[in-house]
Amino acid sequence: MPGNGREVLAIIDRALGEDLGHGDWTTEAIVPADSRARARVVVKSDCIICGLGLAEQVWHRLGGTVVVNDVARDGVRVRSGQTIARFEGSARALLSGERTVLNLVQRLSGIATMTRAFVDAVAGTGARIADTRKTVPGLRMLDKYAVRVGGGHNHRAGLDGGLLIKENHIALAGSISEAVARARRTAPFSLRLEVEVRTSAEVDEALAAGADIIMLDNMALNDLRREVARIAGRALVEASGNVGRENVRAIAETGVDLISVGALTHSVSAADLSMLIDL
Amino acid sequence: MPGNGREVLAIIDRALGEDLGHGDWTTEAIVPADSRARARVVVKSDCIICGLGLAEQVWHRLGGTVVVNDVARDGVRVRSGQTIARFEGSARALLSGERTVLNLVQRLSGIATMTRAFVDAVAGTGARIADTRKTVPGLRMLDKYAVRVGGGHNHRAGLDGGLLIKENHIALAGSISEAVARARRTAPFSLRLEVEVRTSAEVDEALAAGADIIMLDNMALNDLRREVARIAGRALVEASGNVGRENVRAIAETGVDLISVGALTHSVSAADLSMLIDL
Amino acid sequence: MPGNGREVLAIIDRALGEDLGHGDWTTEAIVPADSRARARVVVKSDCIICGLGLAEQVWHRLGGTVVVNDVARDGVRVRSGQTIARFEGSARALLSGERTVLNLVQRLSGIATMTRAFVDAVAGTGARIADTRKTVPGLRMLDKYAVRVGGGHNHRAGLDGGLLIKENHIALAGSISEAVARARRTAPFSLRLEVEVRTSAEVDEALAAGADIIMLDNMALNDLRREVARIAGRALVEASGNVGRENVRAIAETGVDLISVGALTHSVSAADLSMLIDL
Amino acid sequence: MPGNGREVLAIIDRALGEDLGHGDWTTEAIVPADSRARARVVVKSDCIICGLGLAEQVWHRLGGTVVVNDVARDGVRVRSGQTIARFEGSARALLSGERTVLNLVQRLSGIATMTRAFVDAVAGTGARIADTRKTVPGLRMLDKYAVRVGGGHNHRAGLDGGLLIKENHIALAGSISEAVARARRTAPFSLRLEVEVRTSAEVDEALAAGADIIMLDNMALNDLRREVARIAGRALVEASGNVGRENVRAIAETGVDLISVGALTHSVSAADLSMLIDL
Amino acid sequence: MPGNGREVLAIIDRALGEDLGHGDWTTEAIVPADSRARARVVVKSDCIICGLGLAEQVWHRLGGTVVVNDVARDGVRVRSGQTIARFEGSARALLSGERTVLNLVQRLSGIATMTRAFVDAVAGTGARIADTRKTVPGLRMLDKYAVRVGGGHNHRAGLDGGLLIKENHIALAGSISEAVARARRTAPFSLRLEVEVRTSAEVDEALAAGADIIMLDNMALNDLRREVARIAGRALVEASGNVGRENVRAIAETGVDLISVGALTHSVSAADLSMLIDL
Amino acid sequence: MPGNGREVLAIIDRALGEDLGHGDWTTEAIVPADSRARARVVVKSDCIICGLGLAEQVWHRLGGTVVVNDVARDGVRVRSGQTIARFEGSARALLSGERTVLNLVQRLSGIATMTRAFVDAVAGTGARIADTRKTVPGLRMLDKYAVRVGGGHNHRAGLDGGLLIKENHIALAGSISEAVARARRTAPFSLRLEVEVRTSAEVDEALAAGADIIMLDNMALNDLRREVARIAGRALVEASGNVGRENVRAIAETGVDLISVGALTHSVSAADLSMLIDL
Repeated sequence: MPGNGREVLAIIDRALGEDLGHGDWTTEAIVPADSRARARVVVKSDCIICGLGLAEQVWHRLGGTVVVNDVARDGVRVRSGQTIARFEGSARALLSGERTVLNLVQRLSGIATMTRAFVDAVAGTGARIADTRKTVPGLRMLDKYAVRVGGGHNHRAGLDGGLLIKENHIALAGSISEAVARARRTAPFSLRLEVEVRTSAEVDEALAAGADIIMLDNMALNDLRREVARIAGRALVEASGNVGRENVRAIAETGVDLISVGALTHSVSAADLSMLIDL
Repeated sequence: MPGNGREVLAIIDRALGEDLGHGDWTTEAIVPADSRARARVVVKSDCIICGLGLAEQVWHRLGGTVVVNDVARDGVRVRSGQTIARFEGSARALLSGERTVLNLVQRLSGIATMTRAFVDAVAGTGARIADTRKTVPGLRMLDKYAVRVGGGHNHRAGLDGGLLIKENHIALAGSISEAVARARRTAPFSLRLEVEVRTSAEVDEALAAGADIIMLDNMALNDLRREVARIAGRALVEASGNVGRENVRAIAETGVDLISVGALTHSVSAADLSMLIDL
Repeated sequence: MPGNGREVLAIIDRALGEDLGHGDWTTEAIVPADSRARARVVVKSDCIICGLGLAEQVWHRLGGTVVVNDVARDGVRVRSGQTIARFEGSARALLSGERTVLNLVQRLSGIATMTRAFVDAVAGTGARIADTRKTVPGLRMLDKYAVRVGGGHNHRAGLDGGLLIKENHIALAGSISEAVARARRTAPFSLRLEVEVRTSAEVDEALAAGADIIMLDNMALNDLRREVARIAGRALVEASGNVGRENVRAIAETGVDLISVGALTHSVSAADLSMLIDL
Repeated sequence: MPGNGREVLAIIDRALGEDLGHGDWTTEAIVPADSRARARVVVKSDCIICGLGLAEQVWHRLGGTVVVNDVARDGVRVRSGQTIARFEGSARALLSGERTVLNLVQRLSGIATMTRAFVDAVAGTGARIADTRKTVPGLRMLDKYAVRVGGGHNHRAGLDGGLLIKENHIALAGSISEAVARARRTAPFSLRLEVEVRTSAEVDEALAAGADIIMLDNMALNDLRREVARIAGRALVEASGNVGRENVRAIAETGVDLISVGALTHSVSAADLSMLIDL
Repeated sequence: MPGNGREVLAIIDRALGEDLGHGDWTTEAIVPADSRARARVVVKSDCIICGLGLAEQVWHRLGGTVVVNDVARDGVRVRSGQTIARFEGSARALLSGERTVLNLVQRLSGIATMTRAFVDAVAGTGARIADTRKTVPGLRMLDKYAVRVGGGHNHRAGLDGGLLIKENHIALAGSISEAVARARRTAPFSLRLEVEVRTSAEVDEALAAGADIIMLDNMALNDLRREVARIAGRALVEASGNVGRENVRAIAETGVDLISVGALTHSVSAADLSMLIDL
Repeated sequence: MPGNGREVLAIIDRALGEDLGHGDWTTEAIVPADSRARARVVVKSDCIICGLGLAEQVWHRLGGTVVVNDVARDGVRVRSGQTIARFEGSARALLSGERTVLNLVQRLSGIATMTRAFVDAVAGTGARIADTRKTVPGLRMLDKYAVRVGGGHNHRAGLDGGLLIKENHIALAGSISEAVARARRTAPFSLRLEVEVRTSAEVDEALAAGADIIMLDNMALNDLRREVARIAGRALVEASGNVGRENVRAIAETGVDLISVGALTHSVSAADLSMLIDL
């Protein structure tokens, strides 16, 4: 389970709370409290699996005893038709929690699968695929975990996890150097400082001010290549904006260190899984 | 704001909590507490707008005074380049809350846009497009609101909002009629009862048991057409499973009342919006 | 434990929180942490038992190890003097949790007992006794569970668990048919729709609009009988208003399907129980 | 509003949360967001009013603007037919919050009414009517407020609000004097210490140990009278156990200072009120 | 663990939540999930130990299995260099929770140590050392527990745990006797009533009004001695204000029953402890 | 108000919750709900003020209308006898919230005052005074804000706000370079990486591995001076361990960039303030 386990439990609690409300009337009415069943999760299209470990927490939270077996590990590539987990225990827990488990695992596997595709596309270039803060409200921690599982790299986890000076900050401060100076004066010294730039002049000003990372925003390939050469290792270089599967390799070949991709988490295609119950 | 406003505030609180953590170090360091700015949200690809009203709550929660103007109403179709909201007030609030606002509005508008496409595809047939419980954990209420905004219809909000007897319930009860009898014996009488079926024999058993809704799961078009005729208005008919933009009209033309589409909420493409700050 | 176990634990947590506050000073001062005791719950007047299973949760929440034995099952009729549960374990837990356990079980058993009396009064008529939303704030789920244990039937669990169009909704919509049309247009299709009526004309309008349930509010026995005949099975019929032990059988004999009784939960007489500690 | 206003808001939040869930589908579908209405609360049987001030909090929590007028003050005796509050504002708020308001006010007025009856019964004797911890889980603060409104006196608010040494504590400590000594050694010195006794010898031991209050449990009238005389003002005297309307005056006339009555809060008859909406 | 264990768990949860946030990136990156380690807590300056039992809760909350051994009991006096606890288990849990454990134990041991010093200073006089409500927000329960561990006595736990009529209450009521009368009229009778006074006349008025405790605020030693003699056991006597290690014995020798010391909890010197990990 | 205002409100809520519990019985009994009063906060020993702005939130949370005037701004140096804030409004709110306000402001001002003393001690050397994670559980955000107000600099806000590789991480990884490599492989790239070292060889290994910050732990002055010279600006240098008022300037003069001081937050002397109420 990623990071702070307490937050993950809170996510599961909320998911169950909004789905169960006053209770799963259908299951409670039909299935005796002591009924037991076996279930398995089956893949219906190839994907990278992520999040099956959460199932155990869901069953636990529902109060039913469920034994979990043969769980595919996070990051494994699986094929359509494959069984990726087996559960055995309280029939009520399995029926009432099925949708919550699948909603979580399908989203996380979808993220991991898309991330892996981007990572594979830049293989051998030295560039790393990074996520953004464009995650679903309330699932930041899980969304970013799935990016790591897919082989991607995490940008800051939140506004408190790094200093990122954007166009608007610069405008409000008057200049890049003033903005950097203010940030270094009061923010924790344990954070790297990144500056978003659009021109060579801005790159120079950011480097002079002591930026740790330069974000080249929406630049053409030639411009990216030129700025990477000019920066020459004095800061990490991140390319950002309008990155897709079709152009990511070309961007990577300009020599940038990091390529951030919002779509990894803001436009997810759920992996196709289903849970079959064997009575 | 949809439904129970208290739940929506909780969603916003969580979103801000996970993004701000110990604080937006960059903005607090660079932007004076009394700075003011103007911002507007601009559309970068055609879509149906949903959720802009949440922005006001975000600014409020951040403690900054922000005036909101010219907000596009939920359900309006907007074009690339169009300005759909203007904000004026605390620069800190605008900068710290920008991502939270966009994350919410981009997802909800994405859902409304896709729903509208499905609704348009079945126009004139009498069939209604319905959502499922395949929503993102923690956002059920907002996801389903966006479906309504897009012209879709809500299936049950959670496990307590309707009786849906699926294959597994039937297997555990022994028969459809026994499952229906158990559900009617103990569940609240204020809920409709739906039965998932796969054959004509099951349709007959469900009707005899008094089902209010029959879900025809993954049936071929011919089979759907035949069962609709046989049911002949004695229950609502829902088609479910493997519904896409390419086949939804054909399904609708079989005469079913409802077509449920999981992808409306489990595989959302975020609408493309950005917030520009005018200093 | 009824429905969504997580909500029940929250109720117990709140009950302990408000009773213990900074701690049970008396018990902590006097009883050593490792003292053990045996206790039993004794009935002091005949009743239907409900909720003893909650005791185990209370002891658990208090952190003490307590073994629970010989617990009377929910719905059992017990006699004055009878022992209905035995507990053995941490003396501190038993002393500090005693009042919380009894407050819960006495209320729930009181509800179950009164419900059973109403159910017995209509035995053989085909009418079912139903509860209302007149429950104690915060205990809805438990109050309604106790009604089921007493043999009663649950009306909607909350405002989201059914559509009930009352006089005021009709007035604001202009007519019954307009109100029904609006409700069917935007509310989840998984809910039944009930209309509260006062005259034969309203019954006819509600049936024509497609109501699933007709609530006959505060009607005289003759009127009830006539409307039941006129409705003739086209909708469920609920009688409501001024129902007491003295008139409930007469109402049932009019042929209505459901009789809702607010007093089941709004005016509860606690069952008379006490917990005796054997040192 | 009684005591710590924050707790009362939490009670209202929970009440609305459990009733609204995903939303009041009926009202949202039928009543436009900008509809306004007037409502009034009418008494249907004589009672002492308590808790109408909570209505304002309910309307506020629902987000609707509602003006409150002509509210009967807590503790006023009202007659059947009387209007005790007028509300004007958002029709949605009035309809969705009506049941929550009435559930609260009916219970609290029921408690205040019963308490007043007991208080009146002992008028002139010098005895005070006190409540117990036999309140509904989650409503302790409001239940005890209603007792004060009815003219009663509060026993300790929770286990941390006083020292009460009962039979079981004494048995576990070995003697009254040892139990008192332990309690005085570690519990906050700001709390009074009460000892539950059954015999004259126990009274003497409790007084010698320095008890501030003596609880005479389930004693016959003669015994009560004798012990009051023997105690002779050296401690407050509380009579407890099997107190009803029929015997409370006789108990009061024995000279005890306090008479505690569990039924004030464990067996409440809801006051009969209804809310009428004038369109 | 002191008092209501549920509150203590909430304190630990908050401590871990604010420290871990999105996770302990360093430890998760470097230490494999199945690494195990042994650790011990070592004292670096003499002190009274308090709170080591909380460590077990911290490890548990972090999800790691950690065995706890050789824990010094609360209240034991330990010497620099001494090992006071041994832990063995999940290396991740030990590293991520180390700071939370030490922050808690260092503060509580600091409080216990200072309290013991005051208690020792008045040994043999009959006076007891008491705390105040000058605790750190959110840690009241633990701070006061540490005072007890150090041999001190608790004043009221909160504003609801005793009646304390101060100068301002008296001014607002008009007189001591009116203030006392009002408090006795509506506050729970289970609480002692204390009056803060500054002159002999006020002492007399407070005694006449029935005060259980007299607080002599900031009085000179001679005045304290005189008032103790005049009160002559009719009420407990508390000395308060400007109490330090240098004058506490002189105050105690005036014959007061209680001496309250704000510095016990408002100006704590953390005990010097460190946790060493043995790989 | 520092950082994320929502967290600060939660701190105030908890503080009021634990102090008020069931209510401020004394004040509610004695002071009428509509009484008004004026109060001012007076300094009783010189200090740097921090946190007075929280008072407004406290009064607001208590539901009383209180106007706040003449508030000393955070960071101002004030003298004994000076009035630093004036409040006018609800007497109940002022009396019930007084202790909560003072507890917060006294602690924060104590931290700011001590921090300022350390900052003054190193004036002109180029070294900055930094805090640690040795804060009081639950108050991290406020404690660190007070450090900034006193002129200090914040180290990471929590375990997720920077990478700090300590002795134990190194031991578990096998070497500094392996530990750094693991951290850079999976932790967010937006965080600086600091390595704790004890020898020149470790300094070299940390620099070679790419550390952004070197923490020299518990080194003698000569060693500090030598390592600063050897590092020569290739990384920031932090001195840590056994820093006191008496040696901090000597440490600063070795040329280190940062000096972290645990005592700033773990051993706070509350500033001496009191609130006087003028009736």
